[in-house]
Amino acid sequence: MFETILENVREKSPVIHCITNYVTVNDVANVILASGASSIMADEIEEVEDITAISNSLLINIGTLNSRTIESMIRAGKKANKLGIPVILDPVGAGTSNLRMETVKRLLNEIKFSVIIGNPTEIKALFNGTVATGKMSENLIDESSIELYLTIAQLVSKAYNSVVVITGALDIITNSTKTYIVRNGHPTMTRIAGSGCMLTGLIAGYIGANPENILDSTAAAVATMGISGEFADKKTTAENKGTVSFRAFLIDYISKMDSELLNGGIRIEIK
Amino acid sequence: MFETILENVREKSPVIHCITNYVTVNDVANVILASGASSIMADEIEEVEDITAISNSLLINIGTLNSRTIESMIRAGKKANKLGIPVILDPVGAGTSNLRMETVKRLLNEIKFSVIIGNPTEIKALFNGTVATGKMSENLIDESSIELYLTIAQLVSKAYNSVVVITGALDIITNSTKTYIVRNGHPTMTRIAGSGCMLTGLIAGYIGANPENILDSTAAAVATMGISGEFADKKTTAENKGTVSFRAFLIDYISKMDSELLNGGIRIEIK
Amino acid sequence: MFETILENVREKSPVIHCITNYVTVNDVANVILASGASSIMADEIEEVEDITAISNSLLINIGTLNSRTIESMIRAGKKANKLGIPVILDPVGAGTSNLRMETVKRLLNEIKFSVIIGNPTEIKALFNGTVATGKMSENLIDESSIELYLTIAQLVSKAYNSVVVITGALDIITNSTKTYIVRNGHPTMTRIAGSGCMLTGLIAGYIGANPENILDSTAAAVATMGISGEFADKKTTAENKGTVSFRAFLIDYISKMDSELLNGGIRIEIK
Repeated sequence: MFETILENVREKSPVIHCITNYVTVNDVANVILASGASSIMADEIEEVEDITAISNSLLINIGTLNSRTIESMIRAGKKANKLGIPVILDPVGAGTSNLRMETVKRLLNEIKFSVIIGNPTEIKALFNGTVATGKMSENLIDESSIELYLTIAQLVSKAYNSVVVITGALDIITNSTKTYIVRNGHPTMTRIAGSGCMLTGLIAGYIGANPENILDSTAAAVATMGISGEFADKKTTAENKGTVSFRAFLIDYISKMDSELLNGGIRIEIK
Repeated sequence: MFETILENVREKSPVIHCITNYVTVNDVANVILASGASSIMADEIEEVEDITAISNSLLINIGTLNSRTIESMIRAGKKANKLGIPVILDPVGAGTSNLRMETVKRLLNEIKFSVIIGNPTEIKALFNGTVATGKMSENLIDESSIELYLTIAQLVSKAYNSVVVITGALDIITNSTKTYIVRNGHPTMTRIAGSGCMLTGLIAGYIGANPENILDSTAAAVATMGISGEFADKKTTAENKGTVSFRAFLIDYISKMDSELLNGGIRIEIK
Repeated sequence: MFETILENVREKSPVIHCITNYVTVNDVANVILASGASSIMADEIEEVEDITAISNSLLINIGTLNSRTIESMIRAGKKANKLGIPVILDPVGAGTSNLRMETVKRLLNEIKFSVIIGNPTEIKALFNGTVATGKMSENLIDESSIELYLTIAQLVSKAYNSVVVITGALDIITNSTKTYIVRNGHPTMTRIAGSGCMLTGLIAGYIGANPENILDSTAAAVATMGISGEFADKKTTAENKGTVSFRAFLIDYISKMDSELLNGGIRIEIK
């Protein structure tokens, strides 16, 4: 169902301006290239507006934020809004420090995001506006908690007029009126660094090439990521390998993804 | 002999706060995840205390230090000491610049470290308190120099009341009264970036889950790393590959390590 | 023809001081190690002179420049010039922002570079001294545009008294009086992050071990990179893998490169 979205990425080769963390930045760059898009990583305040202006979407990931880069995020985000370029927010670790919580609030206050993506803990932190308590493991999203997170996702989506993605054993993608549930993916994705950051990069590429269709592009990226994870798991088992080989195979399959692989593997429900 | 230590990492899933260099940070994150622990990378001074407070151990690696992150290291280290959270220091390149030497002195002066890990050049720099002279290759640790480095390790251990690890063709782990010599590992580990940083991450995970048993946890991590390197070499040869594939296989084997693999491969001597 | 150059890298094990971007820094470190050299990544202004002083070459890559690191680049470059250590410039994204353009001008004004390397867009930006217009794809180098870029390369080489490399489907290496055209490589190299940065690292290693022969060392590194890419493509196809596995295989082959592989695969023309 998402053929055109994938084809647009490869045909239009959108450029993604990324202000992202230094832990997973290389994987993000490679995922974006694998999808058919390309990235420019730039976080110096003096140049971010120039870079945003030549880009097709802007990715803001606060994973290793600092006082210098927070200002760059704000400036780039405002420029993107002014030019009508879609912006995606990945509020990594939103619930783990006051600085992250305050930064996320400021970003949401000053910038309009087309997409907000996070795990249950992060989206709940946005929802509550406070630093999270409790362990990550108490905040898993699965079949038993799906209704709770569906409600949260729709409320956050309405509050910020954004497509909201909550990731987990299953993924929720909603614009508050239409919702997709994607049931692709593999647990090994939680045993490598950067699965979430990579998905954010992939969505940035997809919406950069399909700015008129943010919800479907986001769902297509979520499904592509999940299906690639399933193929990567099979390859890892077949070759008797472990987590870092899995990571390579995951991006390998993103580089090979086409309509046939996508349609053959997608498990998606529309609500 | 180290079964419980490994099991604790997987069962307790400790969180490691890492202030580390941007060269090998992704490998460190993946090694920590492969061991069963998880990491938060955060180096902004305004948030490091919050992050340390929710972590089970703190890793400080000065590989790409700068004026901003040095202050974050100090602040996080003090917080960890206050809360009784173990801290590990990897004084990367301690002997290569005055800034690194002065930073290491300041860290050692203001923070109590549970573990200090380095190659012979780095530990000698700590021992002498001066920037190293001579080439790295003059400072290899092997069977012929083992007594010298054993003495240095024990003296540094006593001076800072820390477990000290010196890495090389063989590894010394000592708390000054009890010493392990580990003879696992493979020379290709010196042909990839970050073997040392990854081992530091692995130790941080192990001591985070076993804070009451720092010496044995450190030795178990050193052995796990070395045995994984031996398996990775076999796989690299079997598949006719090179250094970066070796790196993936190394972390793959860390992700598969269990008591059986560890006990089957460990070559350890107690002094 | 380049046997001695390769052998010197492995025998002399030069140390490369890198001030480079955080996106591809790990690949650069691994490529340098794979070649037989080693790297120190250090960008803090207080220590860069110390680090340059113990190095055999200096690499400056502006890919994720910021106000702090620009000053470090200048200071390290001046130190290298004073000590007669070769310096290589990779003006990543020179055409994408005013900050990058001004920084490149300042670097070229204050530092003498032994080698300048870029894609056609970047070298044209240096040539014109202005931010580029037009899409990257309008600036490909291939058989039809070879004469144009040959002229540009020679003019830039004369202007800055540097060896100039323009990379693309074919690569031009010139010192203005002697020129090599290398026709190795594979298109998948453009689908991974950091091919250009890795080549810059490889050249830095080669010239660090062969400072008396900058032009030939640079050409040898370009050919090594291209041939490794060709082998990596074969392995990727044979194992039915994708882009990130290709990246691992690329560096794997650099780690295995020797005179026999190089002479067997090189496609080079002298003008």
